[in-house]
Amino acid sequence: MKIVILNSGSSSIKYQLIAMPSQEVICSGMIDRIGLETSNLTYQTSTTNLEETLPIANHKIGLEKIAQLLRDPNIGVIQSTQEINAVGHRVVHGGASFSDTVLIDQGVKDKIKELFALAPLHNPAHLLGITVAQEIFATAKQVAVFDTAFHQTIPEIAHKFAIPNSFLTQNKIRMYGFHGTSHKYVSEKAMAYLPQKAKIISIHLGNGCSITAIKDGKSIDHSMGFSPANGLIMGTRSGDIDHSLIFYLIDTLGYSSQQVNTLLLKESGMLGLTGFSDLREIESQAAQGNEDCQLALAMNAYRIKKHIGSYVAVLNGLDALVFTAGIGENSSYIRNLVCTDMDYFGIELDTSKNQIRSKEIREINTATSKTKILVIPTNEELEIANQVYELLTS
Amino acid sequence: MKIVILNSGSSSIKYQLIAMPSQEVICSGMIDRIGLETSNLTYQTSTTNLEETLPIANHKIGLEKIAQLLRDPNIGVIQSTQEINAVGHRVVHGGASFSDTVLIDQGVKDKIKELFALAPLHNPAHLLGITVAQEIFATAKQVAVFDTAFHQTIPEIAHKFAIPNSFLTQNKIRMYGFHGTSHKYVSEKAMAYLPQKAKIISIHLGNGCSITAIKDGKSIDHSMGFSPANGLIMGTRSGDIDHSLIFYLIDTLGYSSQQVNTLLLKESGMLGLTGFSDLREIESQAAQGNEDCQLALAMNAYRIKKHIGSYVAVLNGLDALVFTAGIGENSSYIRNLVCTDMDYFGIELDTSKNQIRSKEIREINTATSKTKILVIPTNEELEIANQVYELLTS
Repeated sequence: MKIVILNSGSSSIKYQLIAMPSQEVICSGMIDRIGLETSNLTYQTSTTNLEETLPIANHKIGLEKIAQLLRDPNIGVIQSTQEINAVGHRVVHGGASFSDTVLIDQGVKDKIKELFALAPLHNPAHLLGITVAQEIFATAKQVAVFDTAFHQTIPEIAHKFAIPNSFLTQNKIRMYGFHGTSHKYVSEKAMAYLPQKAKIISIHLGNGCSITAIKDGKSIDHSMGFSPANGLIMGTRSGDIDHSLIFYLIDTLGYSSQQVNTLLLKESGMLGLTGFSDLREIESQAAQGNEDCQLALAMNAYRIKKHIGSYVAVLNGLDALVFTAGIGENSSYIRNLVCTDMDYFGIELDTSKNQIRSKEIREINTATSKTKILVIPTNEELEIANQVYELLTS
Repeated sequence: MKIVILNSGSSSIKYQLIAMPSQEVICSGMIDRIGLETSNLTYQTSTTNLEETLPIANHKIGLEKIAQLLRDPNIGVIQSTQEINAVGHRVVHGGASFSDTVLIDQGVKDKIKELFALAPLHNPAHLLGITVAQEIFATAKQVAVFDTAFHQTIPEIAHKFAIPNSFLTQNKIRMYGFHGTSHKYVSEKAMAYLPQKAKIISIHLGNGCSITAIKDGKSIDHSMGFSPANGLIMGTRSGDIDHSLIFYLIDTLGYSSQQVNTLLLKESGMLGLTGFSDLREIESQAAQGNEDCQLALAMNAYRIKKHIGSYVAVLNGLDALVFTAGIGENSSYIRNLVCTDMDYFGIELDTSKNQIRSKEIREINTATSKTKILVIPTNEELEIANQVYELLTS
């Protein structure tokens, strides 16, 4: 079965063509800067590595261009779009409606549209991607995989805010949780690896950062809430703050709510604390004695530690801690800060194993550590392919 | 030494006259609804219990009335205001300027005024109380005791928000912490009681609710931040929320920032979840099967648990958990929810000891519990008197 995985953003499309059940990535690439004269397109197969700058006016033209490359007589990988059995669409927000991967019909599209207000940057682009893919891959099954779905098992005690009940019942204001595809993927890998698998905390540290408490394979609590803004400190996002400072900025210092929102999403986090948003740069600066960078890294790890503690309380125990995504997989510095002085939780890092770089799942705890510390590379595209394949063959 | 303790609110004055070092409360009482025709005044001594409704136009008239009762030939307790050696003023916000109790001079008054913007409901009333007390108890030393002072030991890693640095340096936006007088009082009682005293978590559950991580007698982390709005779920305050919902309420649903602020401070928390703000009523409703009340109590305890876990991570251990203030001292129901399934932290509640009511410090853990669970009645007035006495005699 050949499955195209699509992640449509407001001005970008990321794609992969994956053969299932072999999990072979036949080709991958992306288009960004859609709508500009200078859109970028990449297309990569086992033999081709294409990069092109060209005007791509909209998502339809972009996806047509991708389909054309897939069918190209010289560098293509299929003869006809009819060979594509399914298109798996990443959809960020499934609200409270979707706790599973679904075959897309008009009802599903209507629901994704209803959720525009909850994910204004993402869901409109996803719906556009779906509509265009329905035209271009007309014979393929269209499937939606929701970032929020894995977190639909989080109980009310954890997903409800302490505000009047009508905001939940009428306005659907609650904690939804994000990065679900990644947390699901790595926690399943961890469960396959572990002798004890009941209580896992997975820490996704990438452009966005989040942490999930997982019990018996189910998400039971998570650091991101109504939108992917809160919780851990991120590249440019503040994560958790005392919300009263928003009212101070608006009502005392004269900011508009949009300005404060932009400030907390785009100018805060590691960027606000250090002037840099790239973690490698911040680690390098810290090593050279930059105190802002040293403090920001320490704050980042401190907040992860606190979340770990709160989830150990909720789980009443801990079998494994999992680090994943760009920073989680590659920053031995952050992992070391997080795992230092955590022996009360049975967390003991092997500092030399922590230095090993690899694309494989690896264990970086000491032999005596009661809790396993694992580094597990995430693969959201493969997880989407797995879920699409499972839905269509079950 | 005779010390008057004053807690001046925007339309109220609470007072006690305490003899030191005997700690005898000679009289106590309060005035509320200042500015109305129907102000209430209470005045209580070992022999008198006065309650009166009368018009009290302002704080000066109120404090004069109190001074007059203190000197009353029949029900008074002093001959002259000159017998009062000191007035100890509770001041909610000391900002980053005050880490200790101080003798009030013009510089201190100026600093309290500078902090009006950070504590608009409290500091103006405190300054008014100080100015009036300086006139009425003209020969007494005036001393300020700050709610924030105990938390000034919280390190930058915990008190800084992940927003651009200029907001800390220029606008003093950081975590300050509150209820410090209470957390200090009960943690010192706990340290005197305990064989091991290094790592304590104190949980103040009253009208406001907060929780503090205390290491070697010093506050190192705390649940309230820039203002007393966040952290635990309170009677009418939401505590922690994902701040992005504020922008949704303002920018999508059309609320003003003041409306959202009022919503989160006055209409949320236990009131928003249940329709009731009094915990005894909520517990009684829960017992009768009210599911909103059952869930709200469970959410309240769940959030306390998560904070405990995060502080156990920060402390890398736990010697004692302390419950204090109205709810903490009296609600066996909440204490039971908080301490259930927490044995991974060495927390084991003795459910029959948990039922005991007393005004004394008491231990409610099982004999085998690694962590002590203590109920310690708080006494902020006495703590203020202690601090004033210590300052003036050292």
